[in-house]
Amino acid sequence: MKPGFAALPEPPYYAVIFTSQRTPGDAGYSEAAERMLALAAQQPGYLGVESSRGADGLGITVSYWASLEAIATWRAQMEHAATRDQGRAQWYEHYELRVAKVERAYGWSRGEPEPRP
Amino acid sequence: MKPGFAALPEPPYYAVIFTSQRTPGDAGYSEAAERMLALAAQQPGYLGVESSRGADGLGITVSYWASLEAIATWRAQMEHAATRDQGRAQWYEHYELRVAKVERAYGWSRGEPEPRP
Repeated sequence: MKPGFAALPEPPYYAVIFTSQRTPGDAGYSEAAERMLALAAQQPGYLGVESSRGADGLGITVSYWASLEAIATWRAQMEHAATRDQGRAQWYEHYELRVAKVERAYGWSRGEPEPRP
Repeated sequence: MKPGFAALPEPPYYAVIFTSQRTPGDAGYSEAAERMLALAAQQPGYLGVESSRGADGLGITVSYWASLEAIATWRAQMEHAATRDQGRAQWYEHYELRVAKVERAYGWSRGEPEPRP
């Protein structure tokens, strides 16, 4: 899989779409974000993550999970919960989170004639 | 709603998660992207969009739709289809697209004590 893209199984699986507006400055954010990515990757049912943030501070991170149970377990993970508290205290102006069931997926890479299912 | 965030109804609704790696340079991309956002917003069943792209060229755009039928109609829209062809010819190195049903959503804004459902 290309850098930045999650290598995922065939659907169905679940996506957590996290859209956020960062506060100015780092204040420990980068280190914590890296730690959360590493910790998430160790959770049962974790499938992958894709993340981007623009110069305006608006970012979208989509994490992929095998089941709603896996998402609930990750949400209850204590260090993750503490980091979310810190996120509201320091790092975010606003966020929206949506949990969704992926029903269909396809992709394309340069050199391929058409999108592949 | 805050700038950059979609104002959405209560779930369920659908999300199209489009993760993409841009080729270097603009080559008409910005204008076409703006046109596609405006055109999408005119489609039946369109609910909103959120989009970010990092300095590395990796971007995530999530568009939100009332139904799978609305997504299919947008996919079949002729100017949109022609612009996708141009995207593969010029603007993208790689992309992955996932269609997902949003089942649960919540958010938070600075000043609120806890995330609101």
